[in-house]
Amino acid sequence: MTTKVLIIGTGAIGGFYGSLLAKAGADVAVVCRSDYEPVKQHGFIIDSHMLGTWTFTPSQVLSNAADYKGTADYVLLCTKVIPSVDRVALVRPAVSADTAVVFIQNGVEIEQEMLSAFPDNEIISGLAFICCNRVKPGEILHLAYGRLALGNLPDAVSHKTRRLCELFRQSGIDCIASENIATERWKKCVWNAPFNPLSVLSGGLPTLDILQSQEAFVRSIMQEIYNIAEAVGHRLPDTIVDVNIENTYSMPPYKTSMLLDYENGHPMETEAILGNAVRTAKRLGIASPLLDSVYALMKLRELKLAELHKKYNPLYREPVSQHPDD
Amino acid sequence: MTTKVLIIGTGAIGGFYGSLLAKAGADVAVVCRSDYEPVKQHGFIIDSHMLGTWTFTPSQVLSNAADYKGTADYVLLCTKVIPSVDRVALVRPAVSADTAVVFIQNGVEIEQEMLSAFPDNEIISGLAFICCNRVKPGEILHLAYGRLALGNLPDAVSHKTRRLCELFRQSGIDCIASENIATERWKKCVWNAPFNPLSVLSGGLPTLDILQSQEAFVRSIMQEIYNIAEAVGHRLPDTIVDVNIENTYSMPPYKTSMLLDYENGHPMETEAILGNAVRTAKRLGIASPLLDSVYALMKLRELKLAELHKKYNPLYREPVSQHPDD
Repeated sequence: MTTKVLIIGTGAIGGFYGSLLAKAGADVAVVCRSDYEPVKQHGFIIDSHMLGTWTFTPSQVLSNAADYKGTADYVLLCTKVIPSVDRVALVRPAVSADTAVVFIQNGVEIEQEMLSAFPDNEIISGLAFICCNRVKPGEILHLAYGRLALGNLPDAVSHKTRRLCELFRQSGIDCIASENIATERWKKCVWNAPFNPLSVLSGGLPTLDILQSQEAFVRSIMQEIYNIAEAVGHRLPDTIVDVNIENTYSMPPYKTSMLLDYENGHPMETEAILGNAVRTAKRLGIASPLLDSVYALMKLRELKLAELHKKYNPLYREPVSQHPDD
Repeated sequence: MTTKVLIIGTGAIGGFYGSLLAKAGADVAVVCRSDYEPVKQHGFIIDSHMLGTWTFTPSQVLSNAADYKGTADYVLLCTKVIPSVDRVALVRPAVSADTAVVFIQNGVEIEQEMLSAFPDNEIISGLAFICCNRVKPGEILHLAYGRLALGNLPDAVSHKTRRLCELFRQSGIDCIASENIATERWKKCVWNAPFNPLSVLSGGLPTLDILQSQEAFVRSIMQEIYNIAEAVGHRLPDTIVDVNIENTYSMPPYKTSMLLDYENGHPMETEAILGNAVRTAKRLGIASPLLDSVYALMKLRELKLAELHKKYNPLYREPVSQHPDD
């Protein structure tokens, strides 16, 4: 029987991974927000440097999950994790008794919201290690990589998770089933917590420049994530900081996803990546002064972005004076 | 006998305070760098919201202190404190046995360099609490405030310091002689250490927005300065953090001097304000993780500014890819 999948969120991640499942023979429907019209008319064009070019015509193109016809075996949530997006509300209308709720998203401590909302459903947590961009509505450019990690919450690997991994593998990308997916999430955060915000706060430096200039600072932030992860029950490998540093030195100088969001005026995953880590540290009484600082500065940066919007309001007056005391 | 003064550095601070001493009857010569030609031809126009408008015609306009004719009673160094400016080399050619070396500059732990270079001269440390801008070469706009604090190193107030204070007071601005000027320098840093870099790292927020959004963070940075100052022998008032916070709430939302430098593409006093504080903490074994973070981020920001210059070099290639791991 054909596997039925509903993808929610058709940015680069949702569009790309949805297209792979369709390639592997699944019945893949999509819920689009801003891209509804172009996707409804033309589907997706996927241009992958690894896998070639193909079109992906979803079985249903919807503006709301409530309009989904049939019973989904999997609902895949692929939006960014930002405060303005209600993850549960997006997914709920399409969740039936037998639906597995899958999220392929960034950030730490984002699991409980879904576990609480769907206590009787299978919950599958996913991480994507990929370079891909939504070039324009319905057009996705896959530059490199693409590995997925999937695992059930609480820690397990179900039949449904294995089946989903198989579909992804059939389509040509690597997908691992992890018995410790919550730990994998913290592992990924070891890299994201320094490089994503530092790329923004530096004004746009690529990863290699950040590392070459401030390796000790980057290492200390990574160590704070390690400490928080350990306190919350996820013991990471002792070598994880060294390995992340070495890997970053050997990669080309990349722009992080948060920097790309920043440069494109899109909301950033500050809360999912930093805010949740900082709050977890506070709750457990773990010191995380560097993360606290980086988080505070990201909040100031976001405030400035909000001010820039206000500036277009004719009632806004910009401060002009210099401070007397410096 | 007329007091003879040589001002080195004719930005807003040097031009304004030099003009005041001339107003009070001193013989005031200036060493200019980029402004040499216009100042040589037209002197300075000072437009003060407090004291009116006047012109200041220096007795000598020089491009190098070595060209100074006569023996200066005071040499006043009024440049920014940045790594590319050799403070001692700028001053030395005009320093005679009876010359008092005065610096009206920002930052902490900037005294020893001058004490070591001029062990037989009177050294006077000065702090300016003022809003003024160099509008263009030879034109200075004094917006508000103007108080000076002067004191000898090591802690004392000499006859020459009192005499300089009197001249400033005669010209219409407040000048206090302090027996603890090195402590005053740390006091000023309590405000500068958070607000200057946070205004830059936030992307341009004025002081009030920073405070309203991140008061706890600002307070913690101030407390770190308090701790370092205490360890290095400058016990600050117990209420200093509270007082600085309250004062900042009651001021209009200002742009800091570091933000103005940043916006104008000028070098910032990152090392004088933050770097020296962080190095002092390290030397004394005092923890200062928030200052460490802010300093590291400022260094990244400065690196990005350097990269932007490189970008105009045709050999420079910008990184284009997205990072796979976030």
